[in-house]
Amino acid sequence: MKQFLKKYYAITDRKQFRHPFEIQIKKMLDRGIRMFQLREKDLTPDQLFRLATELKDVLSGYDASFFINDRVDVAVIVGANGVHLPSKSIPVEAVKHKFPELIVGKSCHSIDEALKAEKEGADYITFSPIFETPEKGNPVGLEALSQVVEKVSIPVYALGGITEEKIPDVLKTGVYGIAGIRLFIS
Amino acid sequence: MKQFLKKYYAITDRKQFRHPFEIQIKKMLDRGIRMFQLREKDLTPDQLFRLATELKDVLSGYDASFFINDRVDVAVIVGANGVHLPSKSIPVEAVKHKFPELIVGKSCHSIDEALKAEKEGADYITFSPIFETPEKGNPVGLEALSQVVEKVSIPVYALGGITEEKIPDVLKTGVYGIAGIRLFIS
Repeated sequence: MKQFLKKYYAITDRKQFRHPFEIQIKKMLDRGIRMFQLREKDLTPDQLFRLATELKDVLSGYDASFFINDRVDVAVIVGANGVHLPSKSIPVEAVKHKFPELIVGKSCHSIDEALKAEKEGADYITFSPIFETPEKGNPVGLEALSQVVEKVSIPVYALGGITEEKIPDVLKTGVYGIAGIRLFIS
Repeated sequence: MKQFLKKYYAITDRKQFRHPFEIQIKKMLDRGIRMFQLREKDLTPDQLFRLATELKDVLSGYDASFFINDRVDVAVIVGANGVHLPSKSIPVEAVKHKFPELIVGKSCHSIDEALKAEKEGADYITFSPIFETPEKGNPVGLEALSQVVEKVSIPVYALGGITEEKIPDVLKTGVYGIAGIRLFIS
């Protein structure tokens, strides 16, 4: 499974894209990004399904993995590598039990949540927001990130407010990878 | 599959319930209802998952079937008999292809939609709104219902604005069953 969990993890928000969807994804591929999460909360399920199919097509031929935010059904039907479960999603355990072939990620915002996600069978977590970022509440900071990295044995992605300049400091915590939305848009 | 498609089909809207969820469902069971659709659009996925589990528990011991509105993942994970797909959901074909064991229903509002749903592999459809009902657009009427019943060979449920007094006229169209929200609340 680890081959699908890359060091840099781009989470989409097409409203912030500077180019049409396919071109923006290709620009990220050109920069070396090989792991994506489709996270487009305003789309209807049929629109999300179509965009997921489009993403899969764009990534074909690359050694790239992709995940669907929240909708386990879309992930399974489209053939994504996994699903990323936000806070109010179907429980990790229930998803893993029924779809053991899916890689399941979980959004965590505290050490307790990280420990719980690992116990429930999450394959990786995002820990956020590391730094200040709009509409995402108080930052957890690098120290809490270091503690999470120490306490859980599954891969941890740092997420939230990370700029290119901050990447070296974030990596010093021993984190598995860096996730971001704006970070990878150019 | 037909044994799971009963004549009367109660679609939930707990905001209109007169009793707590479990008691209201039991009252419907007491009235002989044996087919349910959990349709609670304001719930988060984890809340929907929990309520679906609760519904399953309430129905256990009855020869009753239940369906989940829109969320194929919740239907599969909870072990519902099927999923009911509203207009903007994942396409019927895609769901049937990946989950052939699920009974798939589809909301239709015109004869063309009904024919399309049948062609895509829907196991039954709802046709609505038959009569005037709040926030559901122009009624399709009994004549269009008769035409749909004639033109498709899958079970058709009449839905929308049906009161007890109108049931005999609706049944005269040859419709397979009657679906309703308010109709079954007492």
